[in-house]
Amino acid sequence: MKVGVFDSGIGGLTVVKSLLEHQLFEEIIYFGDTSRVPYGTKDKNTIIRYAIEAVEFFKNFELDLIIVACNTVSAYALDEMNESASCSVIGVVEAGVLATSNAITNKDDNILIIGTNATINSRAYENGLEKLNFTNLTAKATPLLVPLVEEEIVSGEILNATLKHYFDTIEKPKALILGCTHFPLLSQTLQTYFGKETQLIHSGDAIVEYLQNKFDFYKRFSNPKLKFFASENPEALRATAQKWLYE
Amino acid sequence: MKVGVFDSGIGGLTVVKSLLEHQLFEEIIYFGDTSRVPYGTKDKNTIIRYAIEAVEFFKNFELDLIIVACNTVSAYALDEMNESASCSVIGVVEAGVLATSNAITNKDDNILIIGTNATINSRAYENGLEKLNFTNLTAKATPLLVPLVEEEIVSGEILNATLKHYFDTIEKPKALILGCTHFPLLSQTLQTYFGKETQLIHSGDAIVEYLQNKFDFYKRFSNPKLKFFASENPEALRATAQKWLYE
Repeated sequence: MKVGVFDSGIGGLTVVKSLLEHQLFEEIIYFGDTSRVPYGTKDKNTIIRYAIEAVEFFKNFELDLIIVACNTVSAYALDEMNESASCSVIGVVEAGVLATSNAITNKDDNILIIGTNATINSRAYENGLEKLNFTNLTAKATPLLVPLVEEEIVSGEILNATLKHYFDTIEKPKALILGCTHFPLLSQTLQTYFGKETQLIHSGDAIVEYLQNKFDFYKRFSNPKLKFFASENPEALRATAQKWLYE
Repeated sequence: MKVGVFDSGIGGLTVVKSLLEHQLFEEIIYFGDTSRVPYGTKDKNTIIRYAIEAVEFFKNFELDLIIVACNTVSAYALDEMNESASCSVIGVVEAGVLATSNAITNKDDNILIIGTNATINSRAYENGLEKLNFTNLTAKATPLLVPLVEEEIVSGEILNATLKHYFDTIEKPKALILGCTHFPLLSQTLQTYFGKETQLIHSGDAIVEYLQNKFDFYKRFSNPKLKFFASENPEALRATAQKWLYE
């Protein structure tokens, strides 16, 4: 299978990392819209417009599947992308909902969803979890965590002050949905902050679980073809890919 | 005079505020490229492309002057904008250099320039100040200050930790150039952090000083026409304008 991975920037590489670890695909085409990142502060119409342009880009390749690694796009533009694409388009939100449901047994266990302003405003995770009868949901936009990761600040005083700012009054959750592709890079600090009892739900692992539920993967590809495209500065994207995926 | 003010987003409103206070213009047309903000992390070619599109937008109005409120655009795209515009285009960097030169008498007094990654990488302020024989220049990209302002965090623990992160090892400057339109909103905290001896150079005040040097303003306009345009969500821009300019 030949898969396209779409993200607003470089964050979706955390999803590619999970795909590579599980050797699911023969070829992975990554497109990051680096010239217009971030999407998480933009409005719905703009996000849909950009997402459809990404589908158009992927029409240059004969893909079997498009994975939307960006939570914001998954929350707002999945239907529109499916309408204009000639292959299936799946998103991390649906996958994250499924992974949470598999990880949590009690329907009244408290679940905390964090993400960009746009993702949280969409209520996409809450809508999905409410359909599965989860009742104890808290959603919190944590937009500052994105530039912190981009500045490679993944621990220390600023991050701790920021976590306190966002979570000081929030009860420790049973599950924490990392509703932005940048957040897996904060896993260790978040796990320390919330403690061992909190299960972190990671989009990359969630999408692998979702794919394995949905498709039969008869072959493994230990050395898939990888191509990286970006709307600006693809060299920087390739350098980050080298670092995140192989180091 | 009818003036266009261009910014990558809402930050340029701090420049509009200075223009209004000095009642220089009969009509002000503001355009914020809110659907593609921020520019400060983008590369030169993208910034130039977006800036030329802004010039095209302003051709819908018969302007006498375009003011580029965004430091990043001023640093990278002023020549290209001047080439494609049918009126003069002036930027905050040139104005900031002039204002600094007027504020600082000793050529070896230390000057600290802060801004986005793109503005600092351009060395635009340093090039301008070096031409005027200033010798003691330090430039520091402070990209986290932008989302902090956007989250309305303009004091407190996170901001203090961030200032320490950026400035802990930097000598207190005689002048601090606020090389991003967001930073005037941090003036008070920065003044407290660096102390009274540090003069803050504010793009809005700098551009007024520059304009008054360059043009004769025979009339004052206490009630200028104001129009606000944005590439996304102009209502949000107008709401922020209302808040920042009149409250």
